[in-house]
Amino acid sequence: MIEINQPTFVIDKKICLRNIEKMAQKADKHGLRFRPHFKTHQSAEIGEWFRSFGVKSITVSSVKMANSFASHGWDDITIAFPLNILEIKEINTLAKKIKLNVLVENREAAEVLTKKTTNPLGVYIKIDTGFNRSGIAASETGSILYILNSLTEGKHLEFKGFLSHAGHTYQAKSTNEIFTRHFDAVFKLKALKNRYLNEFPHIEVSIGDTPSCSICDNFDGVDEIRPGNFVFYDLMQQNLGVCTFNDIAVRLVVPVVGKYISRNEIVIYGGAVHLSKESIVNINGKPMFGRIVIRKNNEPVLLEPLNYVHQLFQEHGILKVTQRDFNNFQVGDLVEIIPVHSCLTANLAKSYLTTEGEVIRTVHS
Amino acid sequence: MIEINQPTFVIDKKICLRNIEKMAQKADKHGLRFRPHFKTHQSAEIGEWFRSFGVKSITVSSVKMANSFASHGWDDITIAFPLNILEIKEINTLAKKIKLNVLVENREAAEVLTKKTTNPLGVYIKIDTGFNRSGIAASETGSILYILNSLTEGKHLEFKGFLSHAGHTYQAKSTNEIFTRHFDAVFKLKALKNRYLNEFPHIEVSIGDTPSCSICDNFDGVDEIRPGNFVFYDLMQQNLGVCTFNDIAVRLVVPVVGKYISRNEIVIYGGAVHLSKESIVNINGKPMFGRIVIRKNNEPVLLEPLNYVHQLFQEHGILKVTQRDFNNFQVGDLVEIIPVHSCLTANLAKSYLTTEGEVIRTVHS
Repeated sequence: MIEINQPTFVIDKKICLRNIEKMAQKADKHGLRFRPHFKTHQSAEIGEWFRSFGVKSITVSSVKMANSFASHGWDDITIAFPLNILEIKEINTLAKKIKLNVLVENREAAEVLTKKTTNPLGVYIKIDTGFNRSGIAASETGSILYILNSLTEGKHLEFKGFLSHAGHTYQAKSTNEIFTRHFDAVFKLKALKNRYLNEFPHIEVSIGDTPSCSICDNFDGVDEIRPGNFVFYDLMQQNLGVCTFNDIAVRLVVPVVGKYISRNEIVIYGGAVHLSKESIVNINGKPMFGRIVIRKNNEPVLLEPLNYVHQLFQEHGILKVTQRDFNNFQVGDLVEIIPVHSCLTANLAKSYLTTEGEVIRTVHS
Repeated sequence: MIEINQPTFVIDKKICLRNIEKMAQKADKHGLRFRPHFKTHQSAEIGEWFRSFGVKSITVSSVKMANSFASHGWDDITIAFPLNILEIKEINTLAKKIKLNVLVENREAAEVLTKKTTNPLGVYIKIDTGFNRSGIAASETGSILYILNSLTEGKHLEFKGFLSHAGHTYQAKSTNEIFTRHFDAVFKLKALKNRYLNEFPHIEVSIGDTPSCSICDNFDGVDEIRPGNFVFYDLMQQNLGVCTFNDIAVRLVVPVVGKYISRNEIVIYGGAVHLSKESIVNINGKPMFGRIVIRKNNEPVLLEPLNYVHQLFQEHGILKVTQRDFNNFQVGDLVEIIPVHSCLTANLAKSYLTTEGEVIRTVHS
């Protein structure tokens, strides 16, 4: 067994497998293609866990990540990120080797694809269903038509359908609001699909966010789901009501290095370079960078929310703790932090450790 | 010349060298040992730049980083982080090979050092001069005495002096406040030094923060400075009045992938995994994750602050731009982001590119 003595990203493999199985079964039940987003774990080995549930196609968020997973045998990849026209050469090279899909959402990108694509390439039009991050609004039918026309001129291009990431479900104030936003997104995408169904009989609708995919149960008109975060889940998802604490598969395990009774603070070796500075608002209205789990008689105990990661520096983390729990922390203890956003925390780790003691390499190792 | 087509951390080597030279000269002028903090750049190659200015001793923030720089020939290293007693074995191993200093700030750590150190080890007592992150308050003379007594029992331990990081200069609201906090910190440390000077005639005072070291000019009683950030500087330092824009040596260069005229937003390929989610408050009261520099006739132009990095996702960044500047951005352009906190942004890069086209490896590559 590896002895932890510095910040370590620990994974409960059983929970991960359960999360994957549950989502794979859901996709199956609704006749959806399950194309999980691999940006969350960025590990070839965890990729294999998905394969054991029949997953054959994946989503990534950069050409770099696509190349990395292609080199591990994945041959059906969607790069779910607005096309970076500066990487058209790299996209052509990869499209020679595997079934590759990209997204377009503006005329400039469509024109570059039409003119410069040298190998068969699938193209989704990215639709903004209300998140307002990227994509064409579903109502901008002029732009959509322009792009569609442009794409049909590219002899290597295959228009696949409409794709969206309803990331505004992350800002929902209740699970009801997640349902509403999901239905609204699907409604818009279905309308687009129906509009072009005659012309493109194989047209698809692809949706992506973990909140909708986790809790919604109506996927009528949808062909593909691309959730990523669900493999680990995190505090943000738990806070949204999307998962329970028991579904969160990851912890950052960190050593306690200092105690400050005058201000009820504990200093841990574990900072922004381990957790990332992603925060949510705690019940006291303050930003919180993680919840705390300690061991009592070797059993994990989740402390109440007024014990939390209060501040992060490069390598230091400050835990604000209650007077009642202060003495549960001793210099040299290991404590477990539930990360706010597991994708960003995982991205900072060179490797993960499973609760069974297995070291899992990531693309960063 | 390397063609940039994805988020790239670019360094102006001339500015870096000028920043190093200026600080080295300042240390020299005031008779201070210059022990720069290498957590900012984490690169063996940039380490060599410091060597060319006579630097022989360095600061790091973890045992891991100490090992990494020791393997590149650095043989006088202070780990400026509260002692992690779980790494005592690794510390002993490293102390066999090089001149190593650690910090203690509590009785538990002092006792572990006294009992378990097997090789000569320098020890500083970490003093909290008002930052309230870690360290013993200068007024807690009982704890200081206890630790001192404990240390003198350890036959391999050499008490070096008092060390502080006046990180509260980062929260200063004016450069005057930086001066005040610096003087206050030095005053407290000098008092401690004088108190123990008879017993420990070689006792030292070591201070660390970039704001004080950059703008203050009175280091009476100080023996060593350990600034780190000054090698790159960043928006946070500029915002504090510690440096000018011309002193900031780094940019994150990113491609533009989308434009959204209805909300005056630009989407870049460059997110939290490239910039980090560190923010400061912009003039409009909103969090800002970076300022924007564009090229006009191949000359860099710093845009006014209402053009800024407004939001960061894993790989996407959203620029909020003014109506006037909106058309200065085209899909496929490269724009330069001045990072808020260069240490965290650099930590996310596997390598840096100099403006001369040289690739610089980091410990993460």
